[in-house]
Amino acid sequence: MKAEIITTGTEIMIGSILNTNSKFLSSKLSDLGIEPCYHTSVEDSVEKLSSVIRIALDRADVIITTGGLGPTEDDLTKETIAKVLGLELEKDIDLEHEIYKRFKRMNVTMSNNNRKQALKPKGSILIKNDNGTAPGIFLEYNNKKLIMLPGPPNEMIPMFNDYVTPMLITDSNIIIRSINTIGIGESNLEEKLKNLDIYEDNFNISTYAKSGTVEIKIIGKSDNKEALNHKINEKIKVIKDNFNDYIYGFDNKSIAEIVVDLLREKNMQLSLCESCTGGLISSKITSVPGASRVFDRAIVTYSNNAKIHELNVSVDTLERYGAVSEETAFEMAKGLLNKTDSDIVLSVTGIAGPDGGSKEKPVGLVYFCVMNRKEYKVIKNIFSGNRATIQERAAIKSLFEIQKFI
Amino acid sequence: MKAEIITTGTEIMIGSILNTNSKFLSSKLSDLGIEPCYHTSVEDSVEKLSSVIRIALDRADVIITTGGLGPTEDDLTKETIAKVLGLELEKDIDLEHEIYKRFKRMNVTMSNNNRKQALKPKGSILIKNDNGTAPGIFLEYNNKKLIMLPGPPNEMIPMFNDYVTPMLITDSNIIIRSINTIGIGESNLEEKLKNLDIYEDNFNISTYAKSGTVEIKIIGKSDNKEALNHKINEKIKVIKDNFNDYIYGFDNKSIAEIVVDLLREKNMQLSLCESCTGGLISSKITSVPGASRVFDRAIVTYSNNAKIHELNVSVDTLERYGAVSEETAFEMAKGLLNKTDSDIVLSVTGIAGPDGGSKEKPVGLVYFCVMNRKEYKVIKNIFSGNRATIQERAAIKSLFEIQKFI
Repeated sequence: MKAEIITTGTEIMIGSILNTNSKFLSSKLSDLGIEPCYHTSVEDSVEKLSSVIRIALDRADVIITTGGLGPTEDDLTKETIAKVLGLELEKDIDLEHEIYKRFKRMNVTMSNNNRKQALKPKGSILIKNDNGTAPGIFLEYNNKKLIMLPGPPNEMIPMFNDYVTPMLITDSNIIIRSINTIGIGESNLEEKLKNLDIYEDNFNISTYAKSGTVEIKIIGKSDNKEALNHKINEKIKVIKDNFNDYIYGFDNKSIAEIVVDLLREKNMQLSLCESCTGGLISSKITSVPGASRVFDRAIVTYSNNAKIHELNVSVDTLERYGAVSEETAFEMAKGLLNKTDSDIVLSVTGIAGPDGGSKEKPVGLVYFCVMNRKEYKVIKNIFSGNRATIQERAAIKSLFEIQKFI
Repeated sequence: MKAEIITTGTEIMIGSILNTNSKFLSSKLSDLGIEPCYHTSVEDSVEKLSSVIRIALDRADVIITTGGLGPTEDDLTKETIAKVLGLELEKDIDLEHEIYKRFKRMNVTMSNNNRKQALKPKGSILIKNDNGTAPGIFLEYNNKKLIMLPGPPNEMIPMFNDYVTPMLITDSNIIIRSINTIGIGESNLEEKLKNLDIYEDNFNISTYAKSGTVEIKIIGKSDNKEALNHKINEKIKVIKDNFNDYIYGFDNKSIAEIVVDLLREKNMQLSLCESCTGGLISSKITSVPGASRVFDRAIVTYSNNAKIHELNVSVDTLERYGAVSEETAFEMAKGLLNKTDSDIVLSVTGIAGPDGGSKEKPVGLVYFCVMNRKEYKVIKNIFSGNRATIQERAAIKSLFEIQKFI
């Protein structure tokens, strides 16, 4: 089955916001064995939307629209689709009553615009919206499925997961698995993968680079789910045997989540001291729910003064070797370990740029020191990219070093 | 002039990456007075891409494609477009020679795939790619402009800015300005805006909510640029007069950048202590180049222990009022101010969830304390949303409070 995803709205058309809905829906449809073949975005105009819908009816079996279901005059997705299909709009009495009750509760008179929300194309089914007022609409027409969802992701995503997914289950299986690596370049990895015995029909194996990590994505299709699962697991095993040192996780679980889970499992406490990453590692760790059980503190020592007073880095070390040095990274970690009860600490110091680099110490140079009560390891890395990229890559690398050290 | 943006590639179609190219190009085209009317994404397939190009030729004056210009077999954008238009591919001798020289330098034999990169549709002009190997292509056909650019944003963006923009300059002017607010809800703001005398033909004024901020976007069109500028500035003045307390900046300059600039201007040093935001505020500040001149340190005191030892928060306060309280926020800020030479400090403590909330202290409750050597201010806020949203909103709010306090 082929799918087209249509997003409407001025914000997307003028480039004010990113189209995250298409990405989400594409990824979910792929999981369901439905092939997303086209994404189309268009502004809320009857004429343009009509033509887009006609084209989609011609080339896709499943059409999902997001946006244009609200109460305002700009919202005309369902009206337009009904018109293109030659269907009348009919009132959903239950829904109108529900809207009426909602307004009564708020002591507000129901306007005609609000009444509009109770209309749906004849023969369609409403899709419940637990996080907003505009319901979705499901419509079968000439063996095609049309699904209209609201635009805000916080409404659309749960509606798709909870109500639309069961409507779209098919016989053909697609399994998508990911192996997440760090520390090996994409082209190098791709070349080495090509030598492995993992390629065959109905399997697509590709690599995607992002922030210093590379994802190996395996997409397999088959009618036999069990055999498919078995084959994919075999391929994953081959890849694991060959790239074990670079693999930090699977299926795009974030490395921060992996580290927090590992710390919880081992009942260990982590603390961080960051210079060039400026709190980014700490922020990634604390973005994981439950991080408080394993995370004690982070000290972002951006100035030399802070390094001296917070972490007891010696003035002599800073003067002799500089703030960005193996020696300072070591003393930062040691100072932090001494002042906390943490089982493991990590320090980072580097030059994120754009200024501050020199021939000996270029922009992108970063030292890490990971330490526990028994041993430590200092790592030097030179990252390429702009300030944001260097900070991001250094943060990801830090988490990987913590993972390996736990 | 109407434009269609076509992006190709499997990664976008299976939902593996976000389509940032369409957003970038839409925003740039709008600035140039060209109306982006359609975004289309499709996989690299001759059949599907051909039909997409045919549809685009039918409804747009400017067609920009990204992706499919590389040397591999999947890369077939220019071949497909040439075929649809009935144009032959011709060799660009200069380019072939350049590729040849590049390979010779690397001591590698040039493959047929690489030779392919020197081909272009008859009558087209090559667009220089300063950051990669695949050049872009500019083609005029039946009064329509077709522009093919490579997919990687770090190649595509400079090519568009440096070489494509001058090819697209038009007479009609579009000016887009933004006013960025915080602390007022979108619907409330929209309603109040409606009462102001700022609406007229050829001006579109709309609001966009994001992470606790709301952007007021004014888009004006006119042939007379000077008059347009004047009118837009008048509208901005009216909005400023009415919403001054909520405005933190203009034209989507980030609030972290605004705060860093303000601190530099006043020659002030900032330090932070964060609990529930876990380093996010610090990370935003240090994402700004040059932050080191105004930022001393951040202490992320995630545990009570860290609050006591790092910031001298009293055990009694923590026991009596809890870690999430006005009193703890105050003591955190005071402890930090005492141990640093900073001119201004901010503390944050709250419950980001999903666990840890209670009836008296719900998830989303956050206390802030901003303090200098003379005075302080404690702010209480209850944010809605999930963990990431609460952390993000609390971070943005913190930066706004710092901005107001400087």
